[in-house]
Amino acid sequence: MPQDPDALRELVEAFLGELPFDGVLEPLAAPMRHSLGGKRVRPVLALAVGEALGADTATVLPAAAAVELVHSFSLVHDDLPSLDNDTERRGRPTVWAAHGEATAILTGDALLGEAMRLALTYDTPAVARELVDATLAMIGGQQLDLEGGHDLHRLHELKTGALFRAAVMCGGLAAGLGVSEEAPWRAFAGELGVLFQAVDDILDGDGFVLEVGADETRKVAESAGERAQARLAEIDADTSVLATIVAGLVARTH
Amino acid sequence: MPQDPDALRELVEAFLGELPFDGVLEPLAAPMRHSLGGKRVRPVLALAVGEALGADTATVLPAAAAVELVHSFSLVHDDLPSLDNDTERRGRPTVWAAHGEATAILTGDALLGEAMRLALTYDTPAVARELVDATLAMIGGQQLDLEGGHDLHRLHELKTGALFRAAVMCGGLAAGLGVSEEAPWRAFAGELGVLFQAVDDILDGDGFVLEVGADETRKVAESAGERAQARLAEIDADTSVLATIVAGLVARTH
Repeated sequence: MPQDPDALRELVEAFLGELPFDGVLEPLAAPMRHSLGGKRVRPVLALAVGEALGADTATVLPAAAAVELVHSFSLVHDDLPSLDNDTERRGRPTVWAAHGEATAILTGDALLGEAMRLALTYDTPAVARELVDATLAMIGGQQLDLEGGHDLHRLHELKTGALFRAAVMCGGLAAGLGVSEEAPWRAFAGELGVLFQAVDDILDGDGFVLEVGADETRKVAESAGERAQARLAEIDADTSVLATIVAGLVARTH
Repeated sequence: MPQDPDALRELVEAFLGELPFDGVLEPLAAPMRHSLGGKRVRPVLALAVGEALGADTATVLPAAAAVELVHSFSLVHDDLPSLDNDTERRGRPTVWAAHGEATAILTGDALLGEAMRLALTYDTPAVARELVDATLAMIGGQQLDLEGGHDLHRLHELKTGALFRAAVMCGGLAAGLGVSEEAPWRAFAGELGVLFQAVDDILDGDGFVLEVGADETRKVAESAGERAQARLAEIDADTSVLATIVAGLVARTH
């Protein structure tokens, strides 16, 4: 019986909370922990994919956590003064505001490294490959964003879509998904980035909303949600929890 | 017949020069290329280990390049204003001085990601695991260095030794070295960091030289070189080129 998203979120919180960040990482443990806030959307998604495929959550948790650490890496670096210059995130000081700029740069580096280490705990290199491809897309997308003047859809695909795709695929690959079974999962995964980003833009009043207005952005989100549900329905697995997650992404208000 | 270090260096240069940095990395291709200067000590070492084990250089080059990209990643981030604030390296502007701080942060991130991608081109995850462990050690070591007051031997081991160890082991693992054959190579690899760093400190007049003086530091380098040669002699392979490389590391003047 697959677990509901709240139960999966608790598993993610517990796993992240127990990551030791010891040994060589001990000097950065405090800022690394500081950075790990958030809604856990991506790791919950990874776990739900794993459960739909019949895997134990324990098997999928390292991959799910790896995806979350890459997300945190990107936020810690994006918040830096020379990039977005954000001093607050989720009601708390950003890592650089709390620990200084140099330590924040190293904290982001360490989060990325630790993510790769977790993704490499599997016998197959496929999980880590999926994650590194998404990471490179996010970094390239951030540089395009810095330069300005680039297509918003392209930016969203790189900066948001790639890691949503990796969340689904890392969850699946950690659960033993074979190469011949990947296609329908990739099709599903490909709808989630635009869905998440369109709702984000509505909540923040930026991005798509500035380009096409809130009503049109709501339509973008809803049609991406419908396509995601249709893709899920084509997958031969118990995708009921994933359907709940998709509905929650469409309806979310924070 | 193993190739001499200069021939190996040319192979490394050609491979690095041909890395496309295209697709999602295209926006960062120029600063990534800018960052890739240097003596190629680590990738040449990796290739020489691979050749000693009978592997084609073509097989080992992605691993060798991955090690070099991690080295470049660390330099690009260490040069940043909030860390070492260096505006010049190898007679040219550092990446942040030439391309701005934000792009330099992203360039370092991209170098690390691309290194992992190259290390993940192998069927075995062992190469990437070795590299990520070294990367985490370097990042943790840099944070200790920021904090100040830490033991110089420990700092050198983390900031320099770990990646020299990875150069040897990634070259070996890419060449198919089995778990049961690793120990003598690890013993050899463990001598190289202190050897390289002691000579570096002599050439730069800092580190060990400030602690124990130039003469004592020279002795540290020479005895590490002797131990490295002794370790090599215990390995059942044609290690003649590696012996030349070790002798070159002891004698180097720049």
